[in-house]
Amino acid sequence: MKKDYGNLLESVRSKKPLIHHITNYVTVNDCANITLAIGASPVMADDLNESADITGISSALVLNMGTLNERTIKSMLIAGKAANKARIPVVFDPVGVGASSFRNQTASQILEDVKVSVLRGNISEIRRIAGMQSTTKGVDASHEDMLNTDDAITVTKTLSSKLGCVVAVTGAIDVVSYGEKAVCIENGNPMMSNITGTGCMCSSLIGSFCGAAPDLLFDATVSALLAMGIAGEIAFEKAGEKGNGSFRVALHDAVSSMDAKTLTGRAKLYEA
Amino acid sequence: MKKDYGNLLESVRSKKPLIHHITNYVTVNDCANITLAIGASPVMADDLNESADITGISSALVLNMGTLNERTIKSMLIAGKAANKARIPVVFDPVGVGASSFRNQTASQILEDVKVSVLRGNISEIRRIAGMQSTTKGVDASHEDMLNTDDAITVTKTLSSKLGCVVAVTGAIDVVSYGEKAVCIENGNPMMSNITGTGCMCSSLIGSFCGAAPDLLFDATVSALLAMGIAGEIAFEKAGEKGNGSFRVALHDAVSSMDAKTLTGRAKLYEA
Amino acid sequence: MKKDYGNLLESVRSKKPLIHHITNYVTVNDCANITLAIGASPVMADDLNESADITGISSALVLNMGTLNERTIKSMLIAGKAANKARIPVVFDPVGVGASSFRNQTASQILEDVKVSVLRGNISEIRRIAGMQSTTKGVDASHEDMLNTDDAITVTKTLSSKLGCVVAVTGAIDVVSYGEKAVCIENGNPMMSNITGTGCMCSSLIGSFCGAAPDLLFDATVSALLAMGIAGEIAFEKAGEKGNGSFRVALHDAVSSMDAKTLTGRAKLYEA
Repeated sequence: MKKDYGNLLESVRSKKPLIHHITNYVTVNDCANITLAIGASPVMADDLNESADITGISSALVLNMGTLNERTIKSMLIAGKAANKARIPVVFDPVGVGASSFRNQTASQILEDVKVSVLRGNISEIRRIAGMQSTTKGVDASHEDMLNTDDAITVTKTLSSKLGCVVAVTGAIDVVSYGEKAVCIENGNPMMSNITGTGCMCSSLIGSFCGAAPDLLFDATVSALLAMGIAGEIAFEKAGEKGNGSFRVALHDAVSSMDAKTLTGRAKLYEA
Repeated sequence: MKKDYGNLLESVRSKKPLIHHITNYVTVNDCANITLAIGASPVMADDLNESADITGISSALVLNMGTLNERTIKSMLIAGKAANKARIPVVFDPVGVGASSFRNQTASQILEDVKVSVLRGNISEIRRIAGMQSTTKGVDASHEDMLNTDDAITVTKTLSSKLGCVVAVTGAIDVVSYGEKAVCIENGNPMMSNITGTGCMCSSLIGSFCGAAPDLLFDATVSALLAMGIAGEIAFEKAGEKGNGSFRVALHDAVSSMDAKTLTGRAKLYEA
Repeated sequence: MKKDYGNLLESVRSKKPLIHHITNYVTVNDCANITLAIGASPVMADDLNESADITGISSALVLNMGTLNERTIKSMLIAGKAANKARIPVVFDPVGVGASSFRNQTASQILEDVKVSVLRGNISEIRRIAGMQSTTKGVDASHEDMLNTDDAITVTKTLSSKLGCVVAVTGAIDVVSYGEKAVCIENGNPMMSNITGTGCMCSSLIGSFCGAAPDLLFDATVSALLAMGIAGEIAFEKAGEKGNGSFRVALHDAVSSMDAKTLTGRAKLYEA
């Protein structure tokens, strides 16, 4: 089961792909810093006068609906289409879908108009996009939705098959599915949900890995989630008892210090 | 005088109230992280297509005018009215009022159209809203305005009585007034004014406590300011000599590590 | 060659100039915190209803095109003209110029309509503005563009002469030119390019120094870059091996702890 995911990390570091983000203003700084920490290069540009141009010079596009507004929805659609035309991967993070009809409509429109390569969300968000009942708590998964790993696996596989893209559910256990392949990842630490942006940062890492390996979307997504999960474990070991602020700093440290050996060696994953 | 403010902290931690923020993009990440650190759950959504919906699923609303713009003013008014209708607390932080007529007009409009539960600002901002002379320095209180605690008490009491809401002035000494009650809080550390966002974070903490205890707005506000002030003291003890970056990290650590015993035990407050 | 740059730092600390930023939402928090760390006071306000008013109470204006949009371009032009009228320094950071025609047009328009006091960018950005061939990688300088210090000196001098303002190229070696004067600064550490916002923070520091010493724009710019470069060295000594997160915290620590003696004593600069 253990592929050499470290190879993909080295690929990110050597190619330094440019990752275009249209994302929210809450965690955008974390997204930029984590993209740099993994070895890629971030660019954030959300005006419709340039969103297609910036996508055109990039290796992947990350669309994140965290602080959605009418202006940037248009830019997301234009950039998404430009990415499809340029055949670069599109990562879609439907933050908070289920929390308002505006978010529900926007997520539907993006999935209709743009060929998404990787869809990543928490279980509440992914259930909602799969058309299943889901209870959301703002931008966080609800406790009820998180209880059942078997359910998460089923939803992820079904939605991946329906949308024809990689689907990743992140949480205590991450699930990634694409075509015939599906894995569960057990890396990570509960403290990751105590700071804002860990989900958004996962999407940025997925964008970084997919930008470096556009023909290996499944493996790239798994590698990104391994990197984040293992970094969370290392951060907890180093700074967990100090508190949220130190944990966050240690998380960025751990991603920037991640090497291929650690990524492969500490990976805890199994077929789903 | 010393109530068991720790109880309220435990209430935030157990209820994990969802706190809707329409806030500025300078300190929004700090606000989200401090809300998580105290045990509540932040959601930031500022588009008028969803601001009422998001308020509708939340336990409190925080309106912060730090980076005001025409688009989000409308969203603030809609969200504020939705909060009033849903009878959830509204915290208003009139950042930089006095610095431009645009800010003055917006603050007036919010106070006219929305029933605010807690108004929090620095002394220059609160003097301005009280219709008194005030000199402002951008978003910081002016030196002249900060000199006189007796004056701060008078202004706070008068404005609270006029507006019929909790009024909190934060600074070297915090003053909170509501109805017959008024206290001064002496916790805190001067280094808190060396980093951006400590005022905004106070408002997020007030939102978190009020969301957990909507029938105890005065005590909730006092508890929030105690938590912030005591965290500032602890952060200074741990990291003050290292510099601003470490102090900021330690501040987040201290809020996330705050327990009921520390909150009650270290509280330095007296009737005003 | 070694002037007493420390004097200028002390001037920032004693005058605490208010620095109006219209800047991007990726690094705005870093810009606010670094402005406070050097001893100045930041205010971020980008609505066209108040941008001139806020400039009117400020000591310097920083325009940063990192996340450009149509709304804030108008505010930048209005604020820029207000700054010219009030005779306060304008620092212009043409982030990502070359990455889209929208950015190219905006940079041209700002330089046409506003009398800029200091232009700061990476070598790719400055080459582009000078009308020379340049390859850009999103918002980062391209490797090819960075190779030649002699070229950077020539471009900087030529552009400074053409625009009649201070021009600063920052990178492994910084070059600053104005009129007859030109220097190279060798302070800094490569790790500074591993975190987002070091360029933006340089512009904020330049704004802070120019706001305190508006009649010494060249020396103020050099002092700001020395402060940032030396802080980068100190941060690397303290935290470089820990990773990106710790390095970033240590950078803010080092700026806030910078004293006149360190600034002058560690300065490595020579005439260009």
